[in-house]
Amino acid sequence: MLATLLHGDHDIRLEEVNDPQLSTGGDAIVRVVASCVCGSDLWGYRGVTPTPKPKRIGHEFVGIVEQVGGEVSTIKVGDFVIAPFYDCDMTCVNCLNGISSSCLHGGWWGADDRLGGFADGGQGELVRVPHADGTLVATPGQPDAALIPSLLTLADVMGTGHHAAKSAGVTAGSTVVVVGDGAVGLCAVLAARRLGASRIVAMSRNPARQAVAKEFGATDIVELRGEEGIAAIKQMFDGVGADCVLECVGTQESMDQAIRSTRPGGMVGYVGVPNGGAEFPIRTLFGNNIGVRGGVAPVRGYIDELLPEVLSGAIEPGKVFDLELPLAEVSEAYLAMDERRAIKVLLRP
Amino acid sequence: MLATLLHGDHDIRLEEVNDPQLSTGGDAIVRVVASCVCGSDLWGYRGVTPTPKPKRIGHEFVGIVEQVGGEVSTIKVGDFVIAPFYDCDMTCVNCLNGISSSCLHGGWWGADDRLGGFADGGQGELVRVPHADGTLVATPGQPDAALIPSLLTLADVMGTGHHAAKSAGVTAGSTVVVVGDGAVGLCAVLAARRLGASRIVAMSRNPARQAVAKEFGATDIVELRGEEGIAAIKQMFDGVGADCVLECVGTQESMDQAIRSTRPGGMVGYVGVPNGGAEFPIRTLFGNNIGVRGGVAPVRGYIDELLPEVLSGAIEPGKVFDLELPLAEVSEAYLAMDERRAIKVLLRP
Repeated sequence: MLATLLHGDHDIRLEEVNDPQLSTGGDAIVRVVASCVCGSDLWGYRGVTPTPKPKRIGHEFVGIVEQVGGEVSTIKVGDFVIAPFYDCDMTCVNCLNGISSSCLHGGWWGADDRLGGFADGGQGELVRVPHADGTLVATPGQPDAALIPSLLTLADVMGTGHHAAKSAGVTAGSTVVVVGDGAVGLCAVLAARRLGASRIVAMSRNPARQAVAKEFGATDIVELRGEEGIAAIKQMFDGVGADCVLECVGTQESMDQAIRSTRPGGMVGYVGVPNGGAEFPIRTLFGNNIGVRGGVAPVRGYIDELLPEVLSGAIEPGKVFDLELPLAEVSEAYLAMDERRAIKVLLRP
Repeated sequence: MLATLLHGDHDIRLEEVNDPQLSTGGDAIVRVVASCVCGSDLWGYRGVTPTPKPKRIGHEFVGIVEQVGGEVSTIKVGDFVIAPFYDCDMTCVNCLNGISSSCLHGGWWGADDRLGGFADGGQGELVRVPHADGTLVATPGQPDAALIPSLLTLADVMGTGHHAAKSAGVTAGSTVVVVGDGAVGLCAVLAARRLGASRIVAMSRNPARQAVAKEFGATDIVELRGEEGIAAIKQMFDGVGADCVLECVGTQESMDQAIRSTRPGGMVGYVGVPNGGAEFPIRTLFGNNIGVRGGVAPVRGYIDELLPEVLSGAIEPGKVFDLELPLAEVSEAYLAMDERRAIKVLLRP
């Protein structure tokens, strides 16, 4: 089959690799219908994180089940399934506590050192899925083709944006600021809207992203950054800041922006993977009673909550995809993301 | 009148000072019935924080109102009142958001540089109270003398322990670990119990404090610290840690202990004033979805919630006082706290 491998800095290739095989009774083999490129894939692509040897890549995919192991009981051959960006058994204590991203027996797509075999990445034709009953969520019947982009966002970005909003405690009437206008930040706007936020500020200076943010429910756009951005947010919210600030970037600058835009007693929900020197200024947090909560989003559980609204069309997070390419053009997909020509690129094998 | 002044390292003195005067129409003058020494008073007493010039000290007191300014409408002469450890107007946006400790017009007992006069400390005979209607809470009638220690804890330690528990999201059925066996840590145990925690571990190696912790509702005592303490806690809670950990010390070691005793997806509530190099390890928090929330406890609002239970005897946080001295022996009171001979010392003018 064909699969994408990251070789190093700006070196991404589609290559012929061995088809995956069932390696445990709990596995399934899924034929990918759609996958995509994540902002976090760019860390390796840009050489920010090293790639000592070529590795499979891609952690977001939907597809059709082709084979299941003898212990798989709920997932069936022919099911249309959504995979979260990790695998998980949904039976360990962390999964039962709702933190399936810390599954005691789970792992990450593309990791090559566990379960006695090569774990596939999502940017390929086939993927071996461990713990198939826990990891995968089957849709009721085959979904309409038009729904596929939105279903694909449940693998990561929509669930991750939702996690930012839940972590910040967004509820009916909350005032919300979203820092970051990537696919996750835009999905965080949508998540805040469906949770009932009364006012949602998207911080963005990109007209195309501003448009999606507004469509997703942003009531205000702030283009300013740094001190000016913080001052603008404070001015909008009683001089003190917003109830909930959703940090969807992961840099020191964005975290600083988020914390200082939060009112005393408010909460920062953060899902941007902490990059480099980002840290929490404990005295600022303590002095203002600002909480911080977030992390690797437990999207598997969120699929159950969000899927009905995607199927009904109540939410359309798939609008974050503004470019679609065949898997053969995966190299161009990365470049379009790298150069910020695309918000998020959908790939079809 | 007599008032306590901190002069410097281990130099605390009771001195004759001018009686306070009403300086704004919103002031009240309160005759102190009981005050006490706080763990945080020891930072200056021990010379950890400098004392460039002598300063009034003491931020916890209850008393009887002797005078009120012309604009005071709810507090009356003769009322028995509880003061939080700060003053606040209860009308600004932060107070209305429940964070009265960030009152836009509030301040701290003993501060000498605002409102055009000397702000008294609680360890004296009289205190001028700014924003009396906002700051003070009057009991219904004169309380029984036996209730005074518990009422006094509402000025700080009981509300602060409660804040740790609320910040960590303690609710019915939560598993809780309390790091710190000072008066605040012990009150945090009591707060967790009344919020319905199913299991409460007090980390303490002091038999007297262990006894109070058990009386307050601790179901388990762990004497181990550091790696051994963390391992013991994980073992007690499914190998992953507790839902809610209440950090009531403020050192790097205690924060580390707290974070690493929390299960993935759990929450640290922290109220120990961050001291020295304490900071938050963002990657540990992110990777395990552990939230941190807390700060300067907004105890003024909590008085309304906790007072009925103190008056009814349902909770007796005053048991944290294991030494009572006349104000004339304030120097001995500090020494007893400094040498950890007493959990908390009550002072009567």
